[in-house]
Amino acid sequence: MKKAIVLLSGGVDSAVTLYEAKVDYDCKVLTFDYGQKARKEIDHAKLVAEAAGCEYMVLKIDLPWKGSALLDKEKKIPEGMESAEGGIPDTYVPSRNVIFLSFGVSYAEAIGAEAVFIGAHQMDYSNYPDCRSEFFDNYRETIRYGTRAGVESHSIKIETPVIDRSKKEIVEIGDRSGVPFELTWSCYHGDKKPCGKCESCLFRKQAFEEAGVPDPGVK
Amino acid sequence: MKKAIVLLSGGVDSAVTLYEAKVDYDCKVLTFDYGQKARKEIDHAKLVAEAAGCEYMVLKIDLPWKGSALLDKEKKIPEGMESAEGGIPDTYVPSRNVIFLSFGVSYAEAIGAEAVFIGAHQMDYSNYPDCRSEFFDNYRETIRYGTRAGVESHSIKIETPVIDRSKKEIVEIGDRSGVPFELTWSCYHGDKKPCGKCESCLFRKQAFEEAGVPDPGVK
Repeated sequence: MKKAIVLLSGGVDSAVTLYEAKVDYDCKVLTFDYGQKARKEIDHAKLVAEAAGCEYMVLKIDLPWKGSALLDKEKKIPEGMESAEGGIPDTYVPSRNVIFLSFGVSYAEAIGAEAVFIGAHQMDYSNYPDCRSEFFDNYRETIRYGTRAGVESHSIKIETPVIDRSKKEIVEIGDRSGVPFELTWSCYHGDKKPCGKCESCLFRKQAFEEAGVPDPGVK
Repeated sequence: MKKAIVLLSGGVDSAVTLYEAKVDYDCKVLTFDYGQKARKEIDHAKLVAEAAGCEYMVLKIDLPWKGSALLDKEKKIPEGMESAEGGIPDTYVPSRNVIFLSFGVSYAEAIGAEAVFIGAHQMDYSNYPDCRSEFFDNYRETIRYGTRAGVESHSIKIETPVIDRSKKEIVEIGDRSGVPFELTWSCYHGDKKPCGKCESCLFRKQAFEEAGVPDPGVK
């Protein structure tokens, strides 16, 4: 079976992406410990990877310059649906997906994997620049020129199976493919229970409601 | 003064790049500890940054999948000028510059720097795919779409001042701008003295000879 690297955050989007990927690929899961306040998501990513029966690795990434409410203790994680207002939210992490993909591609090259999967989506109110199709399209060209794989054989595919799906649709897809939603973690905070107030909690709530799928909550 | 991030390896090319960059920018130096056998180059990068009077940071990067003779103890660093034969050398590190640039861009975004400098060059026998103009041209487009800086204001510039220079010319430029060559380290090994046999040692020797500049050796 062909191999793929799947970037898994522990949230719903990347869990659904993993379950899509594992239909066609032997998936190696890569999760980043990048200093996020929501450290629990790392444990949840592990649980999801185990449930999916996939080999699993956590990679520590140091971003001492921070520059995001998700990383910086001095910056409060906003409540409410900030992204719905249009701008790039304070939770944007400088060049996060540029960094994450670069490790995914390196891993893929080293083990001869054909693809890197990432659960980005650009629908709804997602205003992260590094979740847009234009970014991924350009990234594909970049690694076609800048890697051994791109020059010598096939370029590593960057797969974004949920890029044009709404959150509602992502929940529906995951519901059909048996994603263990009870193992996922969406909250931007890392407290015992999800806060229910941050944008990520609110998006999750809305998505499950719209999809008519009961959110099992956190196990 | 405008700020720039300069990626500094401790070798000649990046040292010359730093001295070019600091003419126009307040330079923040970023060096990667990525598990390279030539660990001495990290200390040499620090010495060069200090000589240039620049703020300095070493960032640890974990590449557990290795995939390069520069990282993997099981793989011998080749002797001789392997690249002169055409293929991509065993010293290629999977997606190294893709990764390094992504951290440079993240740092630049976080502190509001305008540019990231990298000492890549595609002349002579440089067969690294991630040292080619096509790679950098595509990378510029990618971050124009995938970063807050690219969307909201100016995109981060990726500056490659020696990209079309031969090693000989790089030595000539550095000689004119006062680069402390005696503080640089080129050898792929990390022994007390440069081995004189690896490709990097041989390229260095040839470049100084062709430029007619005496190599001061290692301090």
